[in-house]
This record gives sequence, C-alpha cells and structure tokens, in this order.
Amino acid sequence: MIRKAGITITDTEAQSIEVVDFGLSNLEKEGVQVLTLVQTERISIKVLVLFPNQTEPEHWHPPVGDDPGKEETVRIIAGTVYFYIPGEDTFQAGFIVEGKGDFYTMRKEVVMKPADQITLAPGEKHWFQAREEGAVMYSFSTIARDALDGFTDPDIKRVTKIID
Amino acid sequence: MIRKAGITITDTEAQSIEVVDFGLSNLEKEGVQVLTLVQTERISIKVLVLFPNQTEPEHWHPPVGDDPGKEETVRIIAGTVYFYIPGEDTFQAGFIVEGKGDFYTMRKEVVMKPADQITLAPGEKHWFQAREEGAVMYSFSTIARDALDGFTDPDIKRVTKIID
Repeated sequence: MIRKAGITITDTEAQSIEVVDFGLSNLEKEGVQVLTLVQTERISIKVLVLFPNQTEPEHWHPPVGDDPGKEETVRIIAGTVYFYIPGEDTFQAGFIVEGKGDFYTMRKEVVMKPADQITLAPGEKHWFQAREEGAVMYSFSTIARDALDGFTDPDIKRVTKIID
Repeated sequence: MIRKAGITITDTEAQSIEVVDFGLSNLEKEGVQVLTLVQTERISIKVLVLFPNQTEPEHWHPPVGDDPGKEETVRIIAGTVYFYIPGEDTFQAGFIVEGKGDFYTMRKEVVMKPADQITLAPGEKHWFQAREEGAVMYSFSTIARDALDGFTDPDIKRVTKIID
C-alpha cells in the first residue's frame, strides 16, 4: 500500500514495518501499521497505514519531563481518513467500533483527502479511521515516545508491537 | 517536478513554492526551490527541488539561544543527489561551481538515490547538487530559522526569497 501510494521505500524499510494491535488482539478493527523513516532524539517521521475499515484508537501524547509532549502533523497520502478531535460533535460519516462507544469520545469530524493535513497539539485527544480503500499518511512529529501515550480504552495496557 | 515525483500537493501549496537564489543572482547554478509543508515552533517539513545541475551552496545550521541548532534529515524522492559533508576528501562525481572553489570546502561525497536519506547534526557543513535530471527531496527537521544559517560564501549576505 505504501509503494502503491507513490512512496519509494527500501526493502529493509519494508521489512521494518510494525504491526500495532495495541494489545487488543483485534487488529483488523483496531490497529495501525507503522514504518518509521526517521527517529532521533528530536524528531520522528513515520508512514502510517490503515487497512480497510481499520481504526486507530483514541489516544493523546502526554508531557514527558521537560518536553510538553509530542506535537504531530498527519498528512494524507492516499485514501480518505476520518479524523476525530476535540470540539463540537459533528460525527456523521464515521463509525464507532462495535461495543467501544465509551472509548471514542472525540466526535468532531474532519474528513481528510490526499494533501490535507492536520496538526495536533500535545495532549490533544484524537482517533482516526479508514474506509474500504484503506489509507496511507505521513506522521511528522517531535520526538515520539509511543509507549508513554495515553489511551481512552482501559484495555489498552501498553503498545504491543509484532514485527511482520 | 514535485507532482511528477509522486507527491500530491494542493494548488495553494504549489503557489507558495519559494525560489531561493541566496542573493547571488545566479539561480540556475546556485539556488534551491522550497515548498514548506509544515512549519511550527518545533518542527519543519519541506520539499526541496533542485533544477538540473543546480547546486545548493555550502551552509550550516548554527545554535540559536537554547536550541543547539537545526537537525535535518534529507530523504531523496526523485533524481540522484550528490551530497557533501565533513570527512575525508572523496570528491569524484560532482562538480564545483565555476570560480567558487573556496566556498565549497566539504569534499566527502555521498551519492544518494531515491529512498536514501542522510541526517545532518547541528553545525555540520553541507552542500548538495543535482545533475541533468534535477532532484526532489524531503527535508525533515527541527525548527528552521533559515535566515540565521551560516554560509561559506561571503557573497551570500542573506536569504533572498522571490515568490514565483
């Protein structure tokens, strides 16, 4: 899907893609695939892939020590992404993962197409979803410490990563 | 060239591309074209374009206040880029802009193809060059303060930007 979206990656990078199920063992419905292109002490550049109808669970990036928390810009490369952020409830085109209504509390909807982008301030809760065609996007951010992210769903105990 | 390289950009973005001649009035030989995708107080994401046989002059990113200086990763999207950084002289495939030998002092050569990337520490001098096919690349960095960059060529007084 990444290559089909026009992004050239090496074979080594392709083999390093992480499949993240957030410990929920429900990957097809809740999860994300992550290719880390750059990871330094200051910035993080990733390609995120959502399978068809896959949802990345609601989460936020808390402060860590002197760092106010991760600031992240997501830019869509392929597919349509339904993004949910703080604000008035405009929920319309997305769907809530069955039985998980309590864990998807942000309901302000932003429908994003290729070349659209959104910047999330530290601490800002968000979740996002792809539909039938799936989606590929860039995540440009300050240093990522994914293991310290906060999640609304208490069943997400930690980030489980399975190397494909 | 950006769209041909497979990067989807909006018309507004296309109109915001900056043509930078570094005040040298010699754009075809020394210059760079810059599309800024993200510019916050913490990170900067740009698409850089080199025309055929165009060279970005040698420069570095100095410390600014509490900031140790810009850390930058350049990732090639299209074309071959000849990159020059500190280290032993392995200069072979590139060329020096006529009459400018004194201002291109880094001679360790790194030949970069699509999906290759290089991370430059703050203060690390570098310059780079495209050949006949030109080049398109991403620049992923911490906060950019281009006007404060250092340049080896004393004729570069400041960054002159001409909006196309």
